[in-house]
Amino acid sequence: MTILIENAVILPMTGPENVIENGYITIEGERITEVGAGKPTPGAYAKIIDGTNKAVMPGFINTHTHAAMTLLRGYADDLPLQEWLQTKIWPLEAKFNAEHIYWGTMLAIAEMIKSGTTTFADMYFFMDEVARAVEETGVRGVLARGLTSGRGSDKSVEENLALHKKWHGKAQGRISVFLGPHAPYTCSADFLHYLSELAQKEQIGIHIHLAETKKECDDIMKQHGKTPIALAEEAGLFKNKVIAAHCVYVTEEDIKTLKKYGVGVAHNPESNMKLSSGVAPVPAMLEAGIKVGLGTDGASSNNNLDMLQETRSAALLHKVSTMKPTSLPAYQALEMATANGAAVIGQEKEIGRLVPGYKADLIILDLDVPHMTPCYDIYANIVYSAQASDVLTVMVNGGILMENRVIKTFDEKKLLAHFRKIARDLLAG
Amino acid sequence: MTILIENAVILPMTGPENVIENGYITIEGERITEVGAGKPTPGAYAKIIDGTNKAVMPGFINTHTHAAMTLLRGYADDLPLQEWLQTKIWPLEAKFNAEHIYWGTMLAIAEMIKSGTTTFADMYFFMDEVARAVEETGVRGVLARGLTSGRGSDKSVEENLALHKKWHGKAQGRISVFLGPHAPYTCSADFLHYLSELAQKEQIGIHIHLAETKKECDDIMKQHGKTPIALAEEAGLFKNKVIAAHCVYVTEEDIKTLKKYGVGVAHNPESNMKLSSGVAPVPAMLEAGIKVGLGTDGASSNNNLDMLQETRSAALLHKVSTMKPTSLPAYQALEMATANGAAVIGQEKEIGRLVPGYKADLIILDLDVPHMTPCYDIYANIVYSAQASDVLTVMVNGGILMENRVIKTFDEKKLLAHFRKIARDLLAG
Repeated sequence: MTILIENAVILPMTGPENVIENGYITIEGERITEVGAGKPTPGAYAKIIDGTNKAVMPGFINTHTHAAMTLLRGYADDLPLQEWLQTKIWPLEAKFNAEHIYWGTMLAIAEMIKSGTTTFADMYFFMDEVARAVEETGVRGVLARGLTSGRGSDKSVEENLALHKKWHGKAQGRISVFLGPHAPYTCSADFLHYLSELAQKEQIGIHIHLAETKKECDDIMKQHGKTPIALAEEAGLFKNKVIAAHCVYVTEEDIKTLKKYGVGVAHNPESNMKLSSGVAPVPAMLEAGIKVGLGTDGASSNNNLDMLQETRSAALLHKVSTMKPTSLPAYQALEMATANGAAVIGQEKEIGRLVPGYKADLIILDLDVPHMTPCYDIYANIVYSAQASDVLTVMVNGGILMENRVIKTFDEKKLLAHFRKIARDLLAG
Repeated sequence: MTILIENAVILPMTGPENVIENGYITIEGERITEVGAGKPTPGAYAKIIDGTNKAVMPGFINTHTHAAMTLLRGYADDLPLQEWLQTKIWPLEAKFNAEHIYWGTMLAIAEMIKSGTTTFADMYFFMDEVARAVEETGVRGVLARGLTSGRGSDKSVEENLALHKKWHGKAQGRISVFLGPHAPYTCSADFLHYLSELAQKEQIGIHIHLAETKKECDDIMKQHGKTPIALAEEAGLFKNKVIAAHCVYVTEEDIKTLKKYGVGVAHNPESNMKLSSGVAPVPAMLEAGIKVGLGTDGASSNNNLDMLQETRSAALLHKVSTMKPTSLPAYQALEMATANGAAVIGQEKEIGRLVPGYKADLIILDLDVPHMTPCYDIYANIVYSAQASDVLTVMVNGGILMENRVIKTFDEKKLLAHFRKIARDLLAG
């Protein structure tokens, strides 16, 4: 079955100059077969989508989130970090069971599809439920079981390995499984070392929080006499494919280390702003040639999963933090949300660009709305003006997950009603 | 004709504790007549709106913009300020005629209505056209003719006074007219002094840019030996009702001055970020008791007119700039976008809150969407998660301007098509 999208502005994300003002894309099965200007060769298309006044681009890749934390959206905000965690987040999290995680992830996926995210990298628990939600809804996921050292760590590592065995490469290749050591301040150096070797032996990627807050860096420095990045390097972590979330506090030496090992950085500007973590030196990391993607973090610290907003926030934040209006121009910001994100999760040869042979993970944006008019510069319009609601249609692996704002793989309104009941019971229980 | 909105979450914005979980509002003519919990007294309502799974709140008040600059949206971005102004913005602006300004303002109003803004404070030229657009579309506007000293200043002042005479208090009271001295670096001290006296004599408010960039402050200090705020005070400006846009660079002394005279500050976080102007000390100004509202600035420097985004950006920016997650909590940010905004433009007894006797300037938000689920805290959800597209219905002065996302006072799609033609001709011409 071949799908044709025609008469559209096309952003292949293979370079700023490669935008096609009026072009087409064909999709066969899971993959893109053609991308071009003008009209395609006439053929028998199973479905033709008119792209007039619309733009087609790669779906967003959310390189760091905790999807089921939608259960905690708006539950506690505007508090000091430790009070927020200890009196609010952790006590409610302790009540979560497998069902909660399934529905929390389903809600997150609904929000992600409606805002154009086609892939997300997740770290949480009851990850089998997350995999089930990914399988059912049609999105792409990179899933890791959060791991901490100490009591219960053996069981969690077993769960992570079982998750890998059961789901890695499954759901038409839409699911990957990584190991999820939580952070240097919750994992001992020995545990990190053990996981590094395990990951190498089993050829599994690693997803970890690194250098998120000043307190973390100060504590690690006091305890180990080195930075979190240096500690992770010493534990052998970077011999693996690594998603390093946050990297707010990195030294020049750390930047060299991240570059040397090809570590992927997941930058979460809105979470870092809302929790007052700080401003990651993203322009410097990009300058050094580090792969930096964007993440929303969980909905308890953002409080949404909207990658268009995250992209805009990144572009604005780094302009003011460097006091240079030329920092993180629109194309570069959009690249972080797409092609760079693919590189961060190690799938740069499969997704993140609109290129023949790549998986058809793409979104169609409405340009016929006031805030996208006029359209002198499509990149500037998307980064600085577009809204989640401009995402009309979402395709993953060649399958249509949403068409004209209607989710096709599950009933959105039923999900919301059911979720409200779950949230009520959770607070009452 | 009485309108009833029932079964809704109601945010009167008279204090965080005054949210009504399930309530109603009645509107008669231009004004709110009742706001309460539960059900209203049975009566003959000309129109009943069901607010189930919806929230009702005051419309947003955009305290600083240049509406017609939608003509320049995405025309030039990510450039150093002087290059941006001199090689891009000013040359294209020089081509604008009255018709451009009319259509640019119409596009801005379409975007504002669709994102829940009911009032905007504008400073630009061909302001008669802006007034016409405000009259036709049903929104509320505070309009000022931009004034600079030097060649043509007499004519501009005459235009501003003629605008006042023709439009102030007109369009069912929806239009106010202010004087618009552009800024201390484009207006001589004598000219500011002259306008201060003129404003006092004619009882007209003043809308001015103040202390936006470090360069402005350095230049004014070099030339006059004082800060822009001190210069404005000395010119007698603050004896009038004043909207001071930006106030990014203010000293402790300046803060005392702004407080002493009750000057209203229009904070434009996204413009200040995008142009690398800096971070205004908003928490300190609020702490000092200064009236601080929010503005989007023009679409050439933002690049949108979405007040929900502006509110979120303010809340996030000040948390990271102060490194305190308790800075600018959700309710306070939302107050800036509504009740505080009303105070900044001097209309705090008429709009910005949902209170009997106030003008019915309100919006209805959809809560039955993934990103607003669950709803533990309505303020946090609106500030950190809501999107412009959640705004279903917009009412100004008791008139319905948009209902269920359809603009009632003009044809949105026709406007967009016409605007695209104008933008093409403008670039070609």
